[in-house]
Amino acid sequence: MNSGLSFLVAARQCEIAELEQLVPTSELVGVIARFVHALQRERGISNIFLASQGRQFGGPRHQQVAQCEALERELRLQFDQLDTGTARLRNGARLFNRIAVALHSLDGLPALRQRIATLVLQPKGSTDAFVRLIACLLAVVFEAVDGATDPEISRELVAMFNFMQGKEFAGQERAFGAAVFASGRSDDASRSQWRHLIESQEACFQTFRDFSRTALPEETLPADLEQLRRQGAVSHDGQRPDPEASRVWYDCCTDRIDAMKSVEDQLAANLRVLCEARIAQARAELADQQAIVSALSREASAAPTASGAHYGPNLERSIVAMVQEQSLRLQAMGEELDTVRAALDERKLIERAKGLLMTHRQLSEQDAYKALRQMAMNQKRRIIDVAQAVLTTAEVLPGNPS
Amino acid sequence: MNSGLSFLVAARQCEIAELEQLVPTSELVGVIARFVHALQRERGISNIFLASQGRQFGGPRHQQVAQCEALERELRLQFDQLDTGTARLRNGARLFNRIAVALHSLDGLPALRQRIATLVLQPKGSTDAFVRLIACLLAVVFEAVDGATDPEISRELVAMFNFMQGKEFAGQERAFGAAVFASGRSDDASRSQWRHLIESQEACFQTFRDFSRTALPEETLPADLEQLRRQGAVSHDGQRPDPEASRVWYDCCTDRIDAMKSVEDQLAANLRVLCEARIAQARAELADQQAIVSALSREASAAPTASGAHYGPNLERSIVAMVQEQSLRLQAMGEELDTVRAALDERKLIERAKGLLMTHRQLSEQDAYKALRQMAMNQKRRIIDVAQAVLTTAEVLPGNPS
Repeated sequence: MNSGLSFLVAARQCEIAELEQLVPTSELVGVIARFVHALQRERGISNIFLASQGRQFGGPRHQQVAQCEALERELRLQFDQLDTGTARLRNGARLFNRIAVALHSLDGLPALRQRIATLVLQPKGSTDAFVRLIACLLAVVFEAVDGATDPEISRELVAMFNFMQGKEFAGQERAFGAAVFASGRSDDASRSQWRHLIESQEACFQTFRDFSRTALPEETLPADLEQLRRQGAVSHDGQRPDPEASRVWYDCCTDRIDAMKSVEDQLAANLRVLCEARIAQARAELADQQAIVSALSREASAAPTASGAHYGPNLERSIVAMVQEQSLRLQAMGEELDTVRAALDERKLIERAKGLLMTHRQLSEQDAYKALRQMAMNQKRRIIDVAQAVLTTAEVLPGNPS
Repeated sequence: MNSGLSFLVAARQCEIAELEQLVPTSELVGVIARFVHALQRERGISNIFLASQGRQFGGPRHQQVAQCEALERELRLQFDQLDTGTARLRNGARLFNRIAVALHSLDGLPALRQRIATLVLQPKGSTDAFVRLIACLLAVVFEAVDGATDPEISRELVAMFNFMQGKEFAGQERAFGAAVFASGRSDDASRSQWRHLIESQEACFQTFRDFSRTALPEETLPADLEQLRRQGAVSHDGQRPDPEASRVWYDCCTDRIDAMKSVEDQLAANLRVLCEARIAQARAELADQQAIVSALSREASAAPTASGAHYGPNLERSIVAMVQEQSLRLQAMGEELDTVRAALDERKLIERAKGLLMTHRQLSEQDAYKALRQMAMNQKRRIIDVAQAVLTTAEVLPGNPS
């Protein structure tokens, strides 16, 4: 029969097993980060290829597609290595569902590339398709992060997710800006959407700074980029965007995004080191605990007490102290984890509002998000506030199916 | 290589595995409920045995101890059957830690009974020891409930926990009232503590009603109990509690608590039925899903498309619909689970405040709770508000170790 002490040890072993789960999770996040970066490049290159009617970037596009295909294979292998047979993962069902969505989206990639190669797609259609695919991959990262149970590692994973999401907004800004400059036209709507992309990036990087131990200096944007942003996203003076600036804009943005890629690689490496350190630490603590438990058990059997209790008063105090220390530590960890995971609530709320629009208005996921973004832009409010309003209104409207 | 469809199936299998975890959890809660009831009876009998200097209830006490010992063996077996080897349980570390605490507390039971049998303990000391032991067992139930991941079952588990906790407050009220009547004295402090026990019960039963599908009619207290409560807990008219009423009070309360025991048994049975129904439902849905997936795979291999996509447009639509349905369902379940688990937040907050007092003031768990309760009674505030105030103050005080 198991004693209280053996459950004390089992609790610690549980912590170690949960930490060990975070190794493949962190690796998965790292692989997705590299694949997303390659897709972001392919998106940009395909855009220019299409805009130039296939005259520019034919060669680089081939190379980039090959790189993406290699990373896709690596990602699929990583998916296959996930332990789908058991319910070990904390939110396995949601993670696997997101992977199913992502894989389905990936299955459409060859057809998309075919349409790009044969120039039957407009740049905007191509960009939108890549944006959707990358969103599916980031949703996998989100679920992986949401399932992490160690506060210290969760903190870094939340930071990493926000960095990846911020970088993706930067990639979307690159494409959006390039199209605005190329067209030589901007209006209130395009300026507003551009600002939305800038603000979304800034919010993500701020969350990153709030959570990561890796210090990210306040970003100093290159003067060119600053000026071009002002021209495209801010100015109301009737000055038209200069089509010649399209390429300068694109290159500035690309430098910025490539620099982000280096940070991302560093974050993935830090994450690996952190996981290993936490596991080593937990194992050392388990060994210490087991040594104490063995010593206690020996003493207890060497000196049985007459009172009917199993342990003498000194042993009793040691056990109480050990149990209490563990209780308080687990409680503190639980609280810290709750604090960290609260950073994910905003996105969950937006997902809920999207789900509601999808169900009630029969919208696709993309259209539901666009509807929220449009409301936010029209009302000059944050998208999170609009999502909250949608959810609040749904509760009081008649015909609410819940 | 796994396809998106196989991850769709894996997500569903994950859900089933999580539901299957809830069968032993529910059984554990049922066994603890029966054991706690037996301990509540032993507490009451031991009290009268001690108060009568061993002249009353010697025989019933022996019988009750034997019954408790049988149930303790059953509980220990149940603990042993828990899967401590893997990290399958959602909050295994916290659950096992609580079990370690409870087993350690149970190890002290023979010594406690020895002191009762030899009359070296006052009734109050005996009551307090049983209260602490039962609190340890309820803490195990709390962690088991907190780890449940199916909103429908979680809802019933939250209800069950609150019912058990409410019943325990009713048991404490029985002991407290019996002691007040026996002493023939009551003062502001005792009246206030008595009202605290009544209010705590009512809050628990209200949460139970908010969550359980099992309808619990508004309780009509027997006239005797109502009147005796008024005498002991409310009256300020200088009328002294009648020592003769002690036994009437005790019997009224016992009838009430025994009736609660029947409800508890019913809840445990309902929980078993619900678990089985949810598992059967999930398995049927999985079978449906697998049939569709097989059909899709057959069609896809029978009619390969030239476009490079794996599936034709009709299959494509079926897959998208299936994936989206699952996403929305998982999302809705996640939200409902969050709502249900919010009912556990109040207790977590009180635990945090207790932990803080234990760490900063070097108090034992019992003394930390007493300090919170005393503040609440002195300031005529709810214990949850006092706990919140303690946590808020700690953040701004100097020397905060976090």
